[in-house]
Order: sequence, then structure tokens, then C-alpha cells
Amino acid sequence: MLFPDRLSVVIMIDRRVYLVLADASLETIPPSLWSDPIIRKHSKKKKKHPKYIILDSLYHGSAIVNSKLEDKEKRGRPDIVHQALLLAQDSELNNAGFLKVYIHTIRGNVIIVKQNVRPPRNYLRFIGLMEQLFELGRVPPRGDPLISISDKSIGDIINSLENRFVVGFSRRGRRISSLKDFLSRIINGYKNLVIVIGAFPHGFFSEEILAIINDLIALSDRPLTTNYVLCRVISALEEILISP
Amino acid sequence: MLFPDRLSVVIMIDRRVYLVLADASLETIPPSLWSDPIIRKHSKKKKKHPKYIILDSLYHGSAIVNSKLEDKEKRGRPDIVHQALLLAQDSELNNAGFLKVYIHTIRGNVIIVKQNVRPPRNYLRFIGLMEQLFELGRVPPRGDPLISISDKSIGDIINSLENRFVVGFSRRGRRISSLKDFLSRIINGYKNLVIVIGAFPHGFFSEEILAIINDLIALSDRPLTTNYVLCRVISALEEILISP
Repeated sequence: MLFPDRLSVVIMIDRRVYLVLADASLETIPPSLWSDPIIRKHSKKKKKHPKYIILDSLYHGSAIVNSKLEDKEKRGRPDIVHQALLLAQDSELNNAGFLKVYIHTIRGNVIIVKQNVRPPRNYLRFIGLMEQLFELGRVPPRGDPLISISDKSIGDIINSLENRFVVGFSRRGRRISSLKDFLSRIINGYKNLVIVIGAFPHGFFSEEILAIINDLIALSDRPLTTNYVLCRVISALEEILISP
Repeated sequence: MLFPDRLSVVIMIDRRVYLVLADASLETIPPSLWSDPIIRKHSKKKKKHPKYIILDSLYHGSAIVNSKLEDKEKRGRPDIVHQALLLAQDSELNNAGFLKVYIHTIRGNVIIVKQNVRPPRNYLRFIGLMEQLFELGRVPPRGDPLISISDKSIGDIINSLENRFVVGFSRRGRRISSLKDFLSRIINGYKNLVIVIGAFPHGFFSEEILAIINDLIALSDRPLTTNYVLCRVISALEEILISP
């Protein structure tokens, strides 16, 4: 039975997995908060204009609560995308060249992460890097950009992928019995699999993200964290693509 | 074939998984560093004696490098245990009551984490909590302790578990072809499975940890991060214990 095995390996090699960390709670301080006393104090302490500071509920929690920002419950949690990015970039799935990560932010920016990027492991260093990214549009400032902000929308990027299937994960989705079997069937049928996982603490996907999703799936009846869902998805994909 | 299925469920329910985050890079500033100028400056800024501050290479990196500390390459990375603890506590494995987490620190302390603990998601809040833990021996200071420092050694704790098998993960271990099959066999044969994963950035397990390990396993030829290994192990165990 050598032939079918070899064939299946050949088929798998041209498969690609795109991970969209969606509506990510990662943004600079929005203009409507710049005059807030807490923000002004923090800006002075950091010696940076608020437009160059990442919104973080640790420092800006009460400013967010007191504001008229939309979707308050989704904002100020850049730690979520930090941890998810570390797990994704560290994975064997990424190391084997199957994975491509996009961060879609709550304000609609799309951040492109190169396959070989090793994000700073320390949270404060990561925040510093993201501040540089939003200021310059790319990091590092010169040479090959490792992380950059795209001028395209997430819809444009995903819809340009041929022969794709887009799976979103949410408690509001339908329950499946086996994640591995479910993903196997998609990988057998489509060249490009897009995984969409929310990278915000509470709430639901934006309309922009819902518009790209083909199938909405739930792994549990209870709310799950971004990193836990990502962990399950990566493990299942590695079983399918790397150690079948 | 209903009977064997039901039997297997009954058998699984009394199974328990213990996770040891081993030689964790989590400690207060060691006495030999207290007189270092960088440490003194940081201590002054934080208005805390160094003995109450968590060693962190972000702030104390050059003090660690210039010191005569043993195992320098393993120290000052509390972010590793933070992220692993979040992933473990958030997991369905923990939610279903199968998991018990111990943090064994590089200085040999054993930290006991209750099943219902939701660690602070923000890194700086986690560090604050760990500083309180090392100062008081428990958190919160009053009422039911959620996280506490044991007065037993990791050897005493693990060796007191009856009918146990202890698996360590390291690049120096032997490669296995399927993690799920490997763990299935242990769970079928033993009541208590102990998973040992290093929670330090570089180097190898201490003698104290090696002494409790029955089988040393490698998931890859390349070095893997703590959280990535944990992610793979949790996913495999959930497949075995929760959705067989």
C-alpha cells in the first residue's frame, strides 16, 4: 500500500493553513480617549503621545470603562494576541511551513506576520514592538519587514485565496464531535484552510469577520480562551499534516 | 458493543493527570544579587526589598549575566510559567476535573495551584501575585488559599501518588511516533499520570526532577517551548479522556 500513502503526502504538501486572529484587542489609544486624565498622566510618564501608546486595560481600564467607545468589552487586551502569536509561531505546524498568520485588529487593520518571526516573549517588549509597528507600519524599521501592516482589508486578503474554506470558532457555532475529523475533511477537499479565532476577551465577531466565515464551529458550550482554542486547532492540524 | 464502551468511561473517570511545571524560572531575587547596582536601582524604584521582587531578565538581565549564579541560562523568565499556567487552567481537561498543577521552581519550592484558579491574564498582575505568594506563602492572604507554597518536596509529593507513571518531555528523550497512543497506553495502565514539562528557557532538568521521571520523551528534534509542548499534551489527553 505504498502508493496511496505517497500520494496523500504529495497532496498534503501543497496545503496551506491561514490563521486569522480576528478583531484582535490590539490598537493604539483611540483619539476620543486622549483627553482623559488617566491617559494624559500615563502618556506623560511614558513620554509618548497617546497615539503611539498601545491601549491596555491594565493602565487604561477605567478610561475605557468611562468612555463612549464601541465594543468596550473587546478592547484593551493586547496580551491575548501576544500569547496566541507566540503559540502559533512556535508550533511545529509553522516550523514545517504550513502556517501563515494574520492579525486582524478591532479597528480593521491587518498585520502580516512572516513565517520566521519569533515574537518577543516578554509582554512589555511585545508592547514596545507593537507601538513601533503602529508608528512605522512595519518592524524592523529597515531591511526585510518581519511584521507589517497591510494596505488591504481582511476580506480582500482572504477572498483572493483560491479554493479556500474559512472556519470560525465561537461558542455560538455548531458543536462538532471530532475536531480532527472535521478539519481532515476540509483539508482533503480544499487547498487553503483559513482558521478564524477571536483575539478579544468578550463579545462576538464583527460583521467584517462574519462575512468571510464559511462555517462557524463550537468546541465547547462554555466560553474558551483564544489560546486554548488555538492550542486545540494547532494540535489537530499537526496530527493531520505532519504526523498522519 | 455498549458494555465495553461504558466500562471504558467508568475506568477513565477515576484517572488523574498531574502537571509538574519543572525547574520553573520563577523566584525572588537571590541574596547574591542584592548588592548589584541594577538590582538596587530597581528595588528603589519599586520601593520593595529585592527579596520581595521576582527575578526577571527584562529588568535584571545584566545582573544575572554578571553574577555567579548557577544555571544562569535557566533563570529570570517568569513569563514561561505564567503562560503555561494560563493554558493549563483554561483547558477543558482542567475544567472537567482531571488536572492538578504543581509548579516546581528552580530553587526547589513547590507551588500548589487549586483547580478553580484563574490566574491573572496580565503579565504584570501575575508578577504582583507571585511576589505576594513568595512573601506570604499563599494567596489570597486570608480565606481559602488558591495558590500556596507546599512544605513538601516535589519528590515527596509525586512519590506519594499510588499507581503512578511519570513522563518527562525533553529533546534529550526518545522520539515517539504518536503522542496520543503513547499517553493512551499509560492511562489504560495507571491511575495517576504525571506530566513533567520544563518551565525554563534553556538547559536541562535538575537532578531532583530527573529522579522522579519514569520515561523521558521527545516530541521533536528541535527545541520546543514549554507552552507548545503543554498544548500538544493537553490536546492529546483531552482526546483520550474527554472525547474518546
